[in-house]
Amino acid sequence: MFELDPVLAADTLVVGDLPLCRVLLMNDSQYPWLILVPRRSQLVELADLDEQDYQQFCAESRAVAVAMMAHYAGHKMNIAALGNVVAQLHIHHVVRFHDDPSWPAPIWGKLPAVKYTDAEAARQIAQLQQVLFKESA
Amino acid sequence: MFELDPVLAADTLVVGDLPLCRVLLMNDSQYPWLILVPRRSQLVELADLDEQDYQQFCAESRAVAVAMMAHYAGHKMNIAALGNVVAQLHIHHVVRFHDDPSWPAPIWGKLPAVKYTDAEAARQIAQLQQVLFKESA
Repeated sequence: MFELDPVLAADTLVVGDLPLCRVLLMNDSQYPWLILVPRRSQLVELADLDEQDYQQFCAESRAVAVAMMAHYAGHKMNIAALGNVVAQLHIHHVVRFHDDPSWPAPIWGKLPAVKYTDAEAARQIAQLQQVLFKESA
Repeated sequence: MFELDPVLAADTLVVGDLPLCRVLLMNDSQYPWLILVPRRSQLVELADLDEQDYQQFCAESRAVAVAMMAHYAGHKMNIAALGNVVAQLHIHHVVRFHDDPSWPAPIWGKLPAVKYTDAEAARQIAQLQQVLFKESA
């Protein structure tokens, strides 16, 4: 049974579910930063997904990346499956800007998170739900 | 026409070509680190690949990750499409170990590269060719 890792749960806000992945908003207002977590148990590596789930993940990752770049008018997508600290398979999707606080370095471990205010978080999540799930609305 | 970015060319050694991607060995002996570069012109984002090439990329990425983890008996795969410095689409595939010099941090920008000796580079490349291209051998 799928259960979200408690560290991921603590650091993020739930946007919603795609057919395979839970979409989480990292609670760090410095970057538009989503995390996709395939809702399957016991996954650590992308290659742990079976063939059909892997293809579904690839499709969801592509759709999320395209939607984020369009919505935020970003300069570069960063997509990464790292998982050296939190083992549960999760894949970062981060929109980067030439003037973001870590550019051009990767964002991980760079700066302490700057949390969204409740109002800003609610606004971001509502917009992202519109952008990511509009087809099923 | 596909031409490899000169910075990528300078930092890596050619292992060979999969149906879509050129496989490069990063010349840094601290980690088993391959870079896949789809042999198409003008690509920056993964989403710039057309649907068919994207599926092919996903398949090659999965095969490379599985082969690397098996060959090196690694503890974790790190797969990332960053490209904030070198624009040409290239995707990192890095085998991580709990005792590697940057664990558990991401490797990018962490430590200066430690180049392979010519003999070690030749040995690595020969082994990787065996592991990655054995089906077509």
